[in-house]
Amino acid sequence: MANITKKVSWTSRGDDAGGGEGTPLLNGSEEVRYTRQDSPKGRPEEIPHNEKLLSLKFESLDYDSSENQLFLEEERRMSYLGFRCLEISRWVICGLIGFLTGLIACCIDIAVEKLAGVKYFVVKQNIEKFTEVGGLSISLILWAVLNSSLVMVGAITVAFIEPIAAGSGIPQIKCYLNGVKIPRVVRLKTLVVKVFGVICSVAGGLAVGKEGPMIHSGAVVAAGVSQGRSTSLKKDFKIFEYFRRDTEKRDFVSAGAAAGVSAAFGAPVGGVLFSLEEGASFWNQMLTWRIFFASMISTFTLNFFLSIYNNKPGDLSSPGLINFGRFESDSVAYNFYEIPLFIVMGAIGGLLGALFNKLNYWLTIFRIRYVHRPCLQVMEAMLVAAVTATVSFSMIYFSNDCQPLGPDQSEDYQLQLFCADGEYNSMATTFFNTPERSVRSLFHNPPGSYNPGTLGMFTVTYFFLACWTYGLAVSAGVFIPSLLIGAAWGRLFGILLPTVTASGSIWADPGKYALIGAAAQLGGIVRMTLSLTVIMVEATGNVTYGLPIMLVLMTAKIVGDYFVEGLYDIHIKLQSVPFLHWEAPATSHWLTAREVMGAPVICFNRLEKVGTIVDILSNTSTNHNGFPVVVPVAASDEPGKICGLILRSQLIVLLKHKVFVELARSRLTQRKLQLKDFRDAYPRFPPIQSIHVSQDERDCMMDLSEFMNPTPYTVPQETSLPRVFKLFRALGLRHLVVVDHDNRVVGLVTRKDLARYHLGKHGLEELQLAQT
Amino acid sequence: MANITKKVSWTSRGDDAGGGEGTPLLNGSEEVRYTRQDSPKGRPEEIPHNEKLLSLKFESLDYDSSENQLFLEEERRMSYLGFRCLEISRWVICGLIGFLTGLIACCIDIAVEKLAGVKYFVVKQNIEKFTEVGGLSISLILWAVLNSSLVMVGAITVAFIEPIAAGSGIPQIKCYLNGVKIPRVVRLKTLVVKVFGVICSVAGGLAVGKEGPMIHSGAVVAAGVSQGRSTSLKKDFKIFEYFRRDTEKRDFVSAGAAAGVSAAFGAPVGGVLFSLEEGASFWNQMLTWRIFFASMISTFTLNFFLSIYNNKPGDLSSPGLINFGRFESDSVAYNFYEIPLFIVMGAIGGLLGALFNKLNYWLTIFRIRYVHRPCLQVMEAMLVAAVTATVSFSMIYFSNDCQPLGPDQSEDYQLQLFCADGEYNSMATTFFNTPERSVRSLFHNPPGSYNPGTLGMFTVTYFFLACWTYGLAVSAGVFIPSLLIGAAWGRLFGILLPTVTASGSIWADPGKYALIGAAAQLGGIVRMTLSLTVIMVEATGNVTYGLPIMLVLMTAKIVGDYFVEGLYDIHIKLQSVPFLHWEAPATSHWLTAREVMGAPVICFNRLEKVGTIVDILSNTSTNHNGFPVVVPVAASDEPGKICGLILRSQLIVLLKHKVFVELARSRLTQRKLQLKDFRDAYPRFPPIQSIHVSQDERDCMMDLSEFMNPTPYTVPQETSLPRVFKLFRALGLRHLVVVDHDNRVVGLVTRKDLARYHLGKHGLEELQLAQT
Repeated sequence: MANITKKVSWTSRGDDAGGGEGTPLLNGSEEVRYTRQDSPKGRPEEIPHNEKLLSLKFESLDYDSSENQLFLEEERRMSYLGFRCLEISRWVICGLIGFLTGLIACCIDIAVEKLAGVKYFVVKQNIEKFTEVGGLSISLILWAVLNSSLVMVGAITVAFIEPIAAGSGIPQIKCYLNGVKIPRVVRLKTLVVKVFGVICSVAGGLAVGKEGPMIHSGAVVAAGVSQGRSTSLKKDFKIFEYFRRDTEKRDFVSAGAAAGVSAAFGAPVGGVLFSLEEGASFWNQMLTWRIFFASMISTFTLNFFLSIYNNKPGDLSSPGLINFGRFESDSVAYNFYEIPLFIVMGAIGGLLGALFNKLNYWLTIFRIRYVHRPCLQVMEAMLVAAVTATVSFSMIYFSNDCQPLGPDQSEDYQLQLFCADGEYNSMATTFFNTPERSVRSLFHNPPGSYNPGTLGMFTVTYFFLACWTYGLAVSAGVFIPSLLIGAAWGRLFGILLPTVTASGSIWADPGKYALIGAAAQLGGIVRMTLSLTVIMVEATGNVTYGLPIMLVLMTAKIVGDYFVEGLYDIHIKLQSVPFLHWEAPATSHWLTAREVMGAPVICFNRLEKVGTIVDILSNTSTNHNGFPVVVPVAASDEPGKICGLILRSQLIVLLKHKVFVELARSRLTQRKLQLKDFRDAYPRFPPIQSIHVSQDERDCMMDLSEFMNPTPYTVPQETSLPRVFKLFRALGLRHLVVVDHDNRVVGLVTRKDLARYHLGKHGLEELQLAQT
Repeated sequence: MANITKKVSWTSRGDDAGGGEGTPLLNGSEEVRYTRQDSPKGRPEEIPHNEKLLSLKFESLDYDSSENQLFLEEERRMSYLGFRCLEISRWVICGLIGFLTGLIACCIDIAVEKLAGVKYFVVKQNIEKFTEVGGLSISLILWAVLNSSLVMVGAITVAFIEPIAAGSGIPQIKCYLNGVKIPRVVRLKTLVVKVFGVICSVAGGLAVGKEGPMIHSGAVVAAGVSQGRSTSLKKDFKIFEYFRRDTEKRDFVSAGAAAGVSAAFGAPVGGVLFSLEEGASFWNQMLTWRIFFASMISTFTLNFFLSIYNNKPGDLSSPGLINFGRFESDSVAYNFYEIPLFIVMGAIGGLLGALFNKLNYWLTIFRIRYVHRPCLQVMEAMLVAAVTATVSFSMIYFSNDCQPLGPDQSEDYQLQLFCADGEYNSMATTFFNTPERSVRSLFHNPPGSYNPGTLGMFTVTYFFLACWTYGLAVSAGVFIPSLLIGAAWGRLFGILLPTVTASGSIWADPGKYALIGAAAQLGGIVRMTLSLTVIMVEATGNVTYGLPIMLVLMTAKIVGDYFVEGLYDIHIKLQSVPFLHWEAPATSHWLTAREVMGAPVICFNRLEKVGTIVDILSNTSTNHNGFPVVVPVAASDEPGKICGLILRSQLIVLLKHKVFVELARSRLTQRKLQLKDFRDAYPRFPPIQSIHVSQDERDCMMDLSEFMNPTPYTVPQETSLPRVFKLFRALGLRHLVVVDHDNRVVGLVTRKDLARYHLGKHGLEELQLAQT
């Protein structure tokens, strides 16, 4: 079972431990934890619900710079002008991130449009051919085969080449911005697979959107551009070397994620807020402003290239991949007495969202257990594609909702089918179309374009299809399907309203209710708050709707949270990621650092024997990443006094360059180790096993003084958990040293020690730690 | 001179030191600082430029809770349900804040409209009467007298009753949110004076807006509502007692400021971003969401009541005090090639903004030196009012820009004057009007409504009038005048553009350029970034303009910052407030905690003699607010080991309740001291002088263990300044204890120690500390 969990996890590659990411994945002090808490029965293999686990395989990012002597010397050498140049580089990078992200969005959009256009054209031709002669089952088969093959290509790429590119990538980016290192999530290969996969799956007619993956794509672009090199391409441009550390990289990744949101929804402010909501712990004005710049450039680039593509250069009217179309203020003005209705819709959205999430949760558990081999995953994806086509076709076939053909809708893929001439099948506008266009039709088609039965049927089928689709091994997002489901039932709500109130009035413009329904459903599923409000407002291009959308999202969140968590949080929990929320659980004041810390801690002396270091680093059972450096006190069995903190990655670089006291004395090393050596090795430090240390060298000594961080943050052991949490979260720490009154090291708090505690149904609960 | 500085400062009341705010105003370790740095010549009295000073009279807020035993016991007693109730209270309070802020905005709006309506009606009647018979100088005198008397009333209220209500209040709120306690800034009396003053000054025709003061008003409402009592009214509602501490209060004040922005500009998201940009150090999702709720409620309340007032209940079309009017997407669409033009306009805005700020800076220095007595201030305000009326009148009188009267503009105060029948004087639409209406006219009047000469003249005169007006002892904001100046030259730019390019085309819609000009000018003066972009976008109600506005604001900021700081920052610096920026200066890595800290530190023992405590607290030369509690080490002259931190306010409460060890033993105290006792005394703790301690009591002992914060944050003395700064700023600390390797207290870092360092023209500069 543990093995199964591993197989389908985000990082489910066989070559994982010894593979590319290099740094051993364990951190903290799990050994002690086990001896303290876990009876043999408590071993992870036998725990059925794996969302109650916290995986030990995820590392933290180091948002706190290691201010060692090398770093300080560099900073002190740098002039004011140097800092200005760095600042300008940051702006340039953000501009590049925005530009490239916009460009990628543009490519995806055009590719999907082209592919889907060809597909719908072929199928439509075929359907029209067979409508009269009566062999429509052939059309169905053609449609299903076309969809399945497109999806198959996409699923194969994802499942066999880069499984982490599956899904929308938002949970992974959330984790990354939270400070968890998800292996391979920001690699170039992932980006390529993601982009290719999303084109296939959207063109393949699945109930998915291309918006979520944009966020992931933006993040990868950011991580790549900011480092000035690509390990996948084995190319180092020797620029931006200063930014090769977690602190800077994470800042740029926030900008990339924001640029992605911005390109996806044409919502630059929403993008900034998304990044802040998901990632920021410390708000910095300049950083935010840069993120905003990247967002703006991204939506502008997309807009610009799409305007050229559409042969209207300079007409900047498509700021995002999804365009809600223009809501004129007159038609969307709402009245005071409609607010309760909106709140009711929010509650419905919350309920449906909770249902969606619960169903998807069970499905994911099922997938974790039984659908974990790549070929099975591909087959499931193909099955879903075929079923989607079949269901769509039957819905269209059995629908008798014929609407008169407007003169302006000639470019959508209308199907006449059995309707009279000059009419089209209304069900086909929702099913026989890319989801983005369907959403727009639901928002803007004039009242009477859909009859209630059509909308009801559509809502139900699409709900289950979308729920089944999310979590497949294809690269695709859940935003658009949610919007589509919500828009459908929202429009239905708007249509039914006048019949219930028997006023038969005009005020219930169905398009308006479609918008509110879309917001409610999306809010009920993803449970985002401020950023989603702003994204929706920006996508509608009209601020009038701010208050209703906010109320709806709030209601949806409150109602939904009562039943189950948001979809992304569910998937994060199922991966057992040590995710830190905003605050420690409210009722955790009775816990102190002494209870939560890992102890005893393995410490080094300032002058440490190489053999000792190698042995400790090689010990796979205590795979620590941070080691306090201590000055031993007189009585040698007592813990030493803290004088610094050194990281595994630093020690590895030191060992690799053989920075030993004896060798330095004998002038064998040509040059002093510089910060550059650490940066060159970042972020894929070699594993300790790859470093050869001879028996003679094992007796040498290493002087850590220059390389350790001499001023790590510490807390006394009486500190309450919320206080520890606040310090840890606000500064984005990775290791927090716990000391006693004499500054002696008594423990070490890492991410897992804090993420373990959460508020369950029965008060404070503690998650168990697992190796998988 | 020092006395003069004191007189006109924000806190310039004679009764200050012994007055209401109570807590002595000194903090940190200035005595040591003086002996170390200041020669007798360096005393503040003789330093001419007082923006190079840092005042010691400002206290910090305690954003970090003192987690002493009482607090922990309370938190541990509280059930999960209790925390839920608290959370719900927070939401209720935010709703109330939003509602009351909206209501206040509504009152201001209606009062100004009424008063200005009456005034313009009277003057217009008079002008019309005298236009033909030729005694227009009487009209001028009438106008000037009406304006001056309105302004006089406002100025008297402000100058004599509550000087801190002068100006927009934004610098003060910025400081408060930054963590500086500005005396009397969030009191009910301030609010009343502010609201009354702003009505008078806007109706009095000064070149001011009513938007800035809304931010201050919202903040006061928040501080009042969240505490569940009013000290001014001597009324304690016994609710929300849990929120009676700086941490919670500051969170609510952010919500209030956001609600104020939201009501002022109809910009709820902009409000949230304003609060975050100015105040947040640690981003918390729930807090942000609550702030957003308050903002939304505020704009909704205003909108709702104004719709009732305008006899269109339910028509929610005035979300803010200033309404830019609806920009239709068609008319405002911009082209790619216009972007360089926008950037040029941004640069112009930056230049003009810098000029404005520099002039206002000199004016403020002049005022500090010579216009510091309240009656002089009132006279200056009256003078400005009379001059404004005179200038306006002459401009209208000598203008010969007649425009045909449209049928729809009958409600504005048009003046026919010497124009033909059916025409009106175009200059009068800008001068003879409230500034809000003028801005809207400049944005929306059709091309050709103004001739270039009119706009040029108007820009120049209004620029100097607005510059002269800002800083008067009246309650008024600078947003609207800035927008008006910018809109005027922006429109001029738009009109002149086709003549320069000789294409005579339609693309240069002057309204669009007016909007860009307004953004450029405002950005050049206040230098806000993200929040201002969003505010402008929300106020226009159209997201199309996001990118141009952002580019313009960015250019204006870059160009402006090259010359001089933003207006608010100038005024903050002139008040010598210890304001903490986002990061430590880039080149400050060579400074360590040892260099910046105050030392030696006065410490207490866990068991301390009452007499010692009273003596130390009474010592006015070392007016510390935080005292480390130490365990003495064997050699008694060495500093003790840190074991806690206790605040002056806590000690005062302990002394007041006579929590002495001996009395506890003799059972004389009825009950144990509770957290409630501290909360009741918050925030105006009595001064030490008001507490009587008898000679016998002086020999008693006090046990501080239970009341001190046992786990204060500490840093080793080698920590670099940026690192200290980051910790201090991220957690909103007030005292940061510096320790040596044995955890012995060697110094204390407070706000002033960090705010002292800033990047000047010649690298890192250190401000001097001054008592004033």
